[in-house]
Amino acid sequence: MNAPLPNEVLPTYERRPVPPAMLAALRERFGERCSTAAAVREQHGRDESPFPVTPPDAVVFCESTDEVAFVVQQAAAHEVPVIPFGVGSSLEGHLLAVQGGVSIDLSRMTRLVRLNPEDLTVTVEAGVTREQLNQAVRDQGLFFPIDPGANATLGGMAATRASGTNAVRYGTMRENVLGLTVVTAAGEVVHTGTRARKSSAGYDLTRLFVGSEGTLGVMTEVTLKLYPLPEAVSAAICHFPDVGAAVNATIQIIQMGVPIARCELLDANAVRYVNAQSRLGLREQPMLLMEFHGSEAGVKEQAETVQAITAEFGGADFQWATTPEERTRLWTARHKAYFSGMQSNPGCRSVTTDTCVPISRLAEIIESSVSEADASGLPYYIVGHVGDGNFHLAYLVKDGDEAERAVAERLSMQMVQRAIALEGTCTGEHGIGLHKMGFLLDEAGAGSVALMRDIKRALDPKNILNPGKIFVL
Amino acid sequence: MNAPLPNEVLPTYERRPVPPAMLAALRERFGERCSTAAAVREQHGRDESPFPVTPPDAVVFCESTDEVAFVVQQAAAHEVPVIPFGVGSSLEGHLLAVQGGVSIDLSRMTRLVRLNPEDLTVTVEAGVTREQLNQAVRDQGLFFPIDPGANATLGGMAATRASGTNAVRYGTMRENVLGLTVVTAAGEVVHTGTRARKSSAGYDLTRLFVGSEGTLGVMTEVTLKLYPLPEAVSAAICHFPDVGAAVNATIQIIQMGVPIARCELLDANAVRYVNAQSRLGLREQPMLLMEFHGSEAGVKEQAETVQAITAEFGGADFQWATTPEERTRLWTARHKAYFSGMQSNPGCRSVTTDTCVPISRLAEIIESSVSEADASGLPYYIVGHVGDGNFHLAYLVKDGDEAERAVAERLSMQMVQRAIALEGTCTGEHGIGLHKMGFLLDEAGAGSVALMRDIKRALDPKNILNPGKIFVL
Repeated sequence: MNAPLPNEVLPTYERRPVPPAMLAALRERFGERCSTAAAVREQHGRDESPFPVTPPDAVVFCESTDEVAFVVQQAAAHEVPVIPFGVGSSLEGHLLAVQGGVSIDLSRMTRLVRLNPEDLTVTVEAGVTREQLNQAVRDQGLFFPIDPGANATLGGMAATRASGTNAVRYGTMRENVLGLTVVTAAGEVVHTGTRARKSSAGYDLTRLFVGSEGTLGVMTEVTLKLYPLPEAVSAAICHFPDVGAAVNATIQIIQMGVPIARCELLDANAVRYVNAQSRLGLREQPMLLMEFHGSEAGVKEQAETVQAITAEFGGADFQWATTPEERTRLWTARHKAYFSGMQSNPGCRSVTTDTCVPISRLAEIIESSVSEADASGLPYYIVGHVGDGNFHLAYLVKDGDEAERAVAERLSMQMVQRAIALEGTCTGEHGIGLHKMGFLLDEAGAGSVALMRDIKRALDPKNILNPGKIFVL
Repeated sequence: MNAPLPNEVLPTYERRPVPPAMLAALRERFGERCSTAAAVREQHGRDESPFPVTPPDAVVFCESTDEVAFVVQQAAAHEVPVIPFGVGSSLEGHLLAVQGGVSIDLSRMTRLVRLNPEDLTVTVEAGVTREQLNQAVRDQGLFFPIDPGANATLGGMAATRASGTNAVRYGTMRENVLGLTVVTAAGEVVHTGTRARKSSAGYDLTRLFVGSEGTLGVMTEVTLKLYPLPEAVSAAICHFPDVGAAVNATIQIIQMGVPIARCELLDANAVRYVNAQSRLGLREQPMLLMEFHGSEAGVKEQAETVQAITAEFGGADFQWATTPEERTRLWTARHKAYFSGMQSNPGCRSVTTDTCVPISRLAEIIESSVSEADASGLPYYIVGHVGDGNFHLAYLVKDGDEAERAVAERLSMQMVQRAIALEGTCTGEHGIGLHKMGFLLDEAGAGSVALMRDIKRALDPKNILNPGKIFVL
């Protein structure tokens, strides 16, 4: 075993517990919606990362922006941390109360504040999930395309700059948030952006908050772009002799400018796991799962172009999923890959890494990562939003087996370092959290991280907003 | 005459001239590339706004990032302002040396640093213009879509978050800058972003610098997304009985989700001016000038859909521009609208306003603005990137006629206030500069502007980077 990599060492944090006076003020205002019960605190002290549970001192279930402002004002007065919480689906330790403090649960803030179908915009409270949103706008012929695997809240998705399978065509939360309501570190309520599609008015605060992981403000409302449901949608799958061939076909599709809506890679292991859970009967080979949006003719044309490209790269068994039911079945299986992997390996936890590289380097990084993963002997699978150059490699390690976890972590870290060396990023869509602080430094350089710290100190001088995440002050 | 609107009052600035020791250091390093000649200073103390020339004390023509860093280090040591300068095509007074200082001319930084056609990315020095860039990448089958009217530099375009006619399909500089090299207020060189298409790694410094108008750092290199030249392009024009009908047709096109690449409005006055200058022989009625990108079949289909929509709104004379020459002629005329307006009104300057509203409010704001403009008796025209909800109304006022200018300014300001009231923005693509500081406050609110100031103070504690723009510290 080698010495620990810098990214394996988590800092030690000093706790800043909630003082009795503050707890009393929260209890007075929120009654039973302020909880210190162990089960509630534990549920709010974890996410989907393999970190140990690190509970906050209290959890407050807020129902309005004003309530959030009240909690943050209390926290500011007492210099106590606050951590915004949606559904707990983040992956890099974002939600752990490393210094104690109050978890602000926004999951009850589920109002659709305003739908403007004629402008293709909607404003929702931060606790609305992506599935709730899509349900609410479907009968207007609209949809919101950003779809991380989990049914996350829009607030959480904005906080981690989430994306998902549709990003290749529709962009990520970066491109799709038009404006925000944010509670600042002083407990003041500010609004960023407008409902106009573009603006040159001052600093882009919206995009500064998007991806800031709760460290610069608590987002309570999010204004989003919507899209008309496409006239025609069709999905297709295609199998390849190896992962490299699938990736090279993807590179060609993107370079040709095909406006493909989704282009997902599943390696043979991922196919096996989703087969086992969802009974899809797919050929257990690397495959691309693709979707085309447009007019009837446009979809047909895109699909023909793509079929020709995949054939060039040894793609076989190009199959259509023409009915909505078939499509839903395939995409549901894809979204469940993470859980399928765990269910196929009982007693295991997933050590997942998320990187994104320039598309021309994708085959290179995936092929070398596959070699390493195969050599490790650990169960693993790869799924990827390969149209963006983004993919995830997940190792399945026995829960509690520190040696296995150490191997998986080390290989994941090597892969992230490789992504950075290839001019990519240490995280395409999961964020930095606790887990990738060292990599942020490797990727952005000390000078850029120093600017981030300067911004953090300026906007949160008492360091109460989700402290200890992204970087340590 | 009413009392001046708050946005008419410019603050008074204290000058912070370049001390002799600093000038000597600049002369030693740059020789003749450091100029204090009156003509050079005057050329760098103006832009395309109607503000009086306000020259810097010196101009330095930099040829590398290191040279820019040297100038900023000197400026930091002496607490003297620096103002980045591209080609001087900004429109809101961004370049005026309101406190004196040094203009950093980047127009000689024209290297194409790195072209990666396989990844659809390019890195250029900040002084490369959009036309130079397109010329350099065309033989790779690629293009860069962002096209403000002027042949601006990519650095200037990033600094003002520019867009143009293609934004409806391809986005603005906000969506198309992947990374930056920036000289900070301390004269240090930092890099933001990567060549990956998306990232969740830390604060989005790239988008914080984009649109910061030189107030947070001097951008010296810009990494951009490129796009494959579409397989097929076709343009069309269509005339309408009135501006409202043209706008309502546009609204319908966008709401239907037609992936139109460009959708420009010219009112009857604008058509008359471009006819006069470019001999186009267009019918002098409000018109839409549209462009479709895609496959042969896709372009045809889009155009048929659009033709049906325009017919519903009384559009007549739907005409194709099928050859590249015809298309170029039309788009060149469109890009020259600004100069055509001035050439048709000799001795006049333009007072141009730029607003952007949610698309459903576009007809409303344009119709009321047209009524006011007609009633004023001043010559004016409207051109608009109406597919984005963005348009410009330009009054042509006699140079030196303060009364005419005051009327035009007042009407422009009323229009901007209307845009803000309609949940739009005071500037879609020109920026705040000196001219719209009051409107920024109206639009974003005191709380948001306070956050912007906090960020400015954190990143530029001596207030040396283009001071006095966007807001006064």
